[in-house]
Amino acid sequence: MIFLYTDFGVDDPYVGQLHGVLTRHAPGVPVVDLLHNVPRFDARAGAYLLAALAEGFDAGDIIVGVVDPGVGGPRYPLLVEADGRCFIGPDNGLFAIAARRANDMRCYRIEWRPRNLSDSFHGRDLFAPVAAVVARGLMPEPLTELGSLIGSDWPDDLERVIYVDHYGNAVTGVRATRLERTAVLTIKGIAVAYARTFHAAPGGHPFWYENSIGLVEIAVNRGSAADRLGIAVGDALETPVP
Amino acid sequence: MIFLYTDFGVDDPYVGQLHGVLTRHAPGVPVVDLLHNVPRFDARAGAYLLAALAEGFDAGDIIVGVVDPGVGGPRYPLLVEADGRCFIGPDNGLFAIAARRANDMRCYRIEWRPRNLSDSFHGRDLFAPVAAVVARGLMPEPLTELGSLIGSDWPDDLERVIYVDHYGNAVTGVRATRLERTAVLTIKGIAVAYARTFHAAPGGHPFWYENSIGLVEIAVNRGSAADRLGIAVGDALETPVP
Amino acid sequence: MIFLYTDFGVDDPYVGQLHGVLTRHAPGVPVVDLLHNVPRFDARAGAYLLAALAEGFDAGDIIVGVVDPGVGGPRYPLLVEADGRCFIGPDNGLFAIAARRANDMRCYRIEWRPRNLSDSFHGRDLFAPVAAVVARGLMPEPLTELGSLIGSDWPDDLERVIYVDHYGNAVTGVRATRLERTAVLTIKGIAVAYARTFHAAPGGHPFWYENSIGLVEIAVNRGSAADRLGIAVGDALETPVP
Repeated sequence: MIFLYTDFGVDDPYVGQLHGVLTRHAPGVPVVDLLHNVPRFDARAGAYLLAALAEGFDAGDIIVGVVDPGVGGPRYPLLVEADGRCFIGPDNGLFAIAARRANDMRCYRIEWRPRNLSDSFHGRDLFAPVAAVVARGLMPEPLTELGSLIGSDWPDDLERVIYVDHYGNAVTGVRATRLERTAVLTIKGIAVAYARTFHAAPGGHPFWYENSIGLVEIAVNRGSAADRLGIAVGDALETPVP
Repeated sequence: MIFLYTDFGVDDPYVGQLHGVLTRHAPGVPVVDLLHNVPRFDARAGAYLLAALAEGFDAGDIIVGVVDPGVGGPRYPLLVEADGRCFIGPDNGLFAIAARRANDMRCYRIEWRPRNLSDSFHGRDLFAPVAAVVARGLMPEPLTELGSLIGSDWPDDLERVIYVDHYGNAVTGVRATRLERTAVLTIKGIAVAYARTFHAAPGGHPFWYENSIGLVEIAVNRGSAADRLGIAVGDALETPVP
Repeated sequence: MIFLYTDFGVDDPYVGQLHGVLTRHAPGVPVVDLLHNVPRFDARAGAYLLAALAEGFDAGDIIVGVVDPGVGGPRYPLLVEADGRCFIGPDNGLFAIAARRANDMRCYRIEWRPRNLSDSFHGRDLFAPVAAVVARGLMPEPLTELGSLIGSDWPDDLERVIYVDHYGNAVTGVRATRLERTAVLTIKGIAVAYARTFHAAPGGHPFWYENSIGLVEIAVNRGSAADRLGIAVGDALETPVP
């Protein structure tokens, strides 16, 4: 199964063009649109979100991850094998956290180039064709093994908002296992206590909970935490995580 | 074929996570994103829209319907068989109208629980896996047959706006067969007469017509009825339907 | 492979209904959502964008193109064969530019009608079923060959903005091969010079480049050209293309 994880949005033709290439070069392989609204150009926020989502992937899964503001510049194409899953995309940190959390990880620079490589759409021209090769059980030779990845100096958890969903729930880059349930978080100057479920939270009050991918998330039952608290991607959790 | 019908929106990773689970557990079964913009948390509006869309389903089709503000609370998981189609989701009325309009209907409480059940995402953890079981021709035993559904006291038609599409057309919960073509509707204080087609409607004037799923819809030719009349989901049709 | 190209948006049930019909009538045929945000009701802008995207299609590909403000009126259903690709949709110019650029082109009026044809959704009732027939290797007989298409008098390139993507990049209907790299374009009174890549463009300044489908596009590195210059679909390139 190939998962797509990009900041291409869902309104433009770019995702459809990826699907066209994958369907042509890896016919019969399921392709799932995991997320196309990674915060724009924000490989760091994207890295923590992807690492959490990747807990749901299996060995053999392929992830095409394209948040690529440096396309056309010197950044190079990357292939990461991490516990049997294969991540393909630019080397800008997007895969750094998922890679770090794997028990077994190797990373490679992709040397292969297509005959026609646009300057602005390596997702279509390079990463999708490489993913199709991997989906057929091959490797895009030659590969150059790398000693480290961009993002290898980033913290284990990111004490910031990394995603705001359409309900207005604010996902942070902190794994919920890092916090006691008694912890009170502060964001935008507001103290936020824990609740196990939306159902258990008092109506209208912001709370934090462990979301369905194991991250600390700020929410309001039947309301928008983002609107209520004025939260946007990048806002800091002011309570230090121990 | 599995249809997905949710209020998850199209911007977030939730739909992709559903697809991942279904692809893994029911490989080869087509999964169609029918609608992910059911009015948020509004199982009642969603029920009338789903009942109209369900006229296009065939025996054997499976519908995963998730509008689930009560997730994590006492509401229970439901499986409805209605004229050979199988609806899977929370018992909060979302399937009540489709069920009522079926000639042959049975409803069941799903007793099966996955090993890992999150408190906030039963779509991924419970309803999608159950749908995959049904898609493989099995039943998620054990099931407890129920005597009635939430929503069984709702009216046959809902004289309100239940959906506004991106063109600004306002879909109501009233089946067009309930109205004479001479009927003049009133909404937001404005009288609205019938036109058979957009093409037949005088430019710039709101009209009502029978939309492609048999519902009364308020529209403006090459314009937005929602903007013109200030219509939103929940607004009442002031003309009583006979 | 069937590509869908419409102005249905991604929020409403219309795309899902198309997929349902195609899955039922052409099981196993891949269906790709190429673009559902063609500028609303704008077959002309859509024609130039589709012609550029169509360079990526192969012989055997089927395109269901539905931008259809005239649905329910006298416009008729069209099937265009162009270099082995098959375009199906309303005759309103949407396929005119792709057809003109083909070496080998024939166009036909589709005479077949389904038993149930709604007045407002020929995409679901007529064009998708016809596409399913073609995908099975058949033709929707009878067809009446036509001498010409709507749009046959449109210019070779359209010196206007035809699409604005979610990054705020403004795509024009001009093929980049028509311009010298030294050309300075004027749009909204602002002069815009060429840069080969986003990476090469000075930060914050609008530039034009050849986008990944060969069209002239106005952009700002890590910013929105549309916001910066106030660009919308339909705005003219003031520099005449030679």
